[in-house]
Amino acid sequence: MTDILELGKRAQAAAPAIAAAAPAVKNAALAAIADALIARTGEIVKKNQEDIERAVANGMSQSMIDRLLLNPQRIVAIAASVRTLIDMDDIVGSVEHGTIRPNGLQILKTRVPLGVIGIIFESRPNVTVDAATLCLKAGNAVILRGGKEALCSNAHLVAVMREAVESAGLPADVVQFVDDTSHETAEKMMRMNQYLDVLIPRGGAGLIRAVVEHASVPVIQTGTGNCHVYVDDSADLEMAVNIVDNGKTQRPSVCNAVESLLVHKDIAQEALPLIKARLDQHKVVMHGCQTTRSILGPDVQPATEEDYAKEYLSYDISVKVVDSIDEAIAHISRYGTKHSEAIVTRSLEHARKFQTQVDAAAVYVNASTRFTDGGEFGMGAEIGISTQKLHARGPMGLHELTTVKYLINGEGQIR
Amino acid sequence: MTDILELGKRAQAAAPAIAAAAPAVKNAALAAIADALIARTGEIVKKNQEDIERAVANGMSQSMIDRLLLNPQRIVAIAASVRTLIDMDDIVGSVEHGTIRPNGLQILKTRVPLGVIGIIFESRPNVTVDAATLCLKAGNAVILRGGKEALCSNAHLVAVMREAVESAGLPADVVQFVDDTSHETAEKMMRMNQYLDVLIPRGGAGLIRAVVEHASVPVIQTGTGNCHVYVDDSADLEMAVNIVDNGKTQRPSVCNAVESLLVHKDIAQEALPLIKARLDQHKVVMHGCQTTRSILGPDVQPATEEDYAKEYLSYDISVKVVDSIDEAIAHISRYGTKHSEAIVTRSLEHARKFQTQVDAAAVYVNASTRFTDGGEFGMGAEIGISTQKLHARGPMGLHELTTVKYLINGEGQIR
Repeated sequence: MTDILELGKRAQAAAPAIAAAAPAVKNAALAAIADALIARTGEIVKKNQEDIERAVANGMSQSMIDRLLLNPQRIVAIAASVRTLIDMDDIVGSVEHGTIRPNGLQILKTRVPLGVIGIIFESRPNVTVDAATLCLKAGNAVILRGGKEALCSNAHLVAVMREAVESAGLPADVVQFVDDTSHETAEKMMRMNQYLDVLIPRGGAGLIRAVVEHASVPVIQTGTGNCHVYVDDSADLEMAVNIVDNGKTQRPSVCNAVESLLVHKDIAQEALPLIKARLDQHKVVMHGCQTTRSILGPDVQPATEEDYAKEYLSYDISVKVVDSIDEAIAHISRYGTKHSEAIVTRSLEHARKFQTQVDAAAVYVNASTRFTDGGEFGMGAEIGISTQKLHARGPMGLHELTTVKYLINGEGQIR
Repeated sequence: MTDILELGKRAQAAAPAIAAAAPAVKNAALAAIADALIARTGEIVKKNQEDIERAVANGMSQSMIDRLLLNPQRIVAIAASVRTLIDMDDIVGSVEHGTIRPNGLQILKTRVPLGVIGIIFESRPNVTVDAATLCLKAGNAVILRGGKEALCSNAHLVAVMREAVESAGLPADVVQFVDDTSHETAEKMMRMNQYLDVLIPRGGAGLIRAVVEHASVPVIQTGTGNCHVYVDDSADLEMAVNIVDNGKTQRPSVCNAVESLLVHKDIAQEALPLIKARLDQHKVVMHGCQTTRSILGPDVQPATEEDYAKEYLSYDISVKVVDSIDEAIAHISRYGTKHSEAIVTRSLEHARKFQTQVDAAAVYVNASTRFTDGGEFGMGAEIGISTQKLHARGPMGLHELTTVKYLINGEGQIR
């Protein structure tokens, strides 16, 4: 069991080496990690089995066990996503803006690594590698604190990464692993301002709330998405059905999945049965308002306040018939989590109104909320979706894992 | 005495109006504020006198009283700085980046206001107007909590601003003033996550530490600057003397003033007497290491650890002779506050090394640290200098008072 402050100290000591590392050196480290993951698949799967066996013994649900599982195909996928980072442009040192001031000073706004990034995450062990390698590509040291369910898998993945990083000539200490999953240690980590530049929680609403509440280190909140689709009275019905279906059923367990459907009253009679027919193919349970139930009948559950506020992450959806786009926007403002919101409409005025007035990281017109994703946005890999407004909002890629440094060059200028 | 949560609620309710306000409306509000400040100078000065009288009775130092004072000239200057905001481009709605993805989705990264900004500041009442108007120009509502010393002045300035804003057709509630300066209320404000998007403390190190420690609202740290000038062995001596003198004496009370001088041993014998001769003209007290004192004699005070760590904000400077640029960089890494650091050198290698390895918001080659300022950087007005790495680093102007919103336009795309 290592002292968390000691991990912080080591990460901080190693950070300048990776911050100053040439792109080729960082890429060599990433390649070494990808190679090692493949070469050592056997060991990794074996360590993962220990976690799986414990999970089964503890009666963990099948879907949670599935999130925990590492098998050769999944390790190939993890290694592949590390390799995609290699091809991405290096952001460190790039000049974001440059000016010559009237007094001749040259001012360059450059991008530099944040320093040491702490990540607190829950069960999925692929996050260990995804998050660490993205931090490394952006020139940062990283301290990883995963959930206790994946302790054996995570510890081994970190050991593999540390050896690989070192083989590429970087200090192994740029990747640190917290092998103590107690709350006390997590809370110490959250207040380790002297060693951590930022803390990113990845996981459910409870984890994120706890980190925001207890951290004095700057936090970037990610994640919870109570995403809505509003079907406007002028909507193309086939498009509406496709977008609701895709948002709800393509991958229900993720944060950009649709959790709530709002339908304009003038189109509800026609739209709701079509949407229900499609969702029925995936056995989606609808939780509807009074009007919805009067249109669709009693196999729609009655929706409660909790239904409207809920991020189901399952084959459930809340449904409400609204009188106007204004009521839809007000509903989203009340229950939404500022993640991704969509309108299906043919009206330019309504499209513009919705995009202007809805306060969320990503606001869609006639497209599925499932696109809120670093890869889909063309940023490459991402470390999460920020639902807060400071530093990063929406998908967080390499850019969001850096900060700026102004370089000012003069010939003796004084004020 | 108003309930702080009530202020938060009102600011949040008013925020959408200013977020959606056209540039012309925001500018009309700013013009109305500038006009009202001039028209109502008499009242403002009278209210300020109440604060001054209380300060005198409480035995406040002359320099603190000077910071507190508002007179007609100063009010003219405050109004003029409000007017400079009018001429600045409106940032809200500007597109920072836009792409068409292979599937035809148009993704626009636009700038939008943060929402509600809380500012906790110390004595200078000009901050009340500067900070509020900058927040308004960027489309935000603002909650101002100043020091108790300036309570009468601040309350009146806010009343003037609220009336002016309302006369321009915006809700007065976009500017809120906390008239209760108790610690309890300040701490409540720091945890008001439901109403505040960001909290910016402006003031001394103690205030900033307290806010970072107690806030659950995201904080942008500003301010403390223990700034160094390192005079390299290859430095132009006249330039070095000018830069040290300017950094230390042009305005010692500000965060970008120089607090510490590092001199390479090979040039110390020649440089230190020249620097001392110039600083003597301003009666600067030098606190030097053993070598400095052996060169300059006993009227240099012996420097302690505290001297090296200190932000004097006065006519004092710590001085250390170092063996190498590496020792200078290590010293800055240990004692600096990541604000502004300068090297005076003729060596390209050393210039590059210093700018790469020194971790600070602004790193200068051959120029005075006094340039770290929104106006000098060409950003217009600023709300402070961020010394942290998240969201904003260096001078914080309009750009730093906004966040992003992705607008995604499709024709029915699904994943």
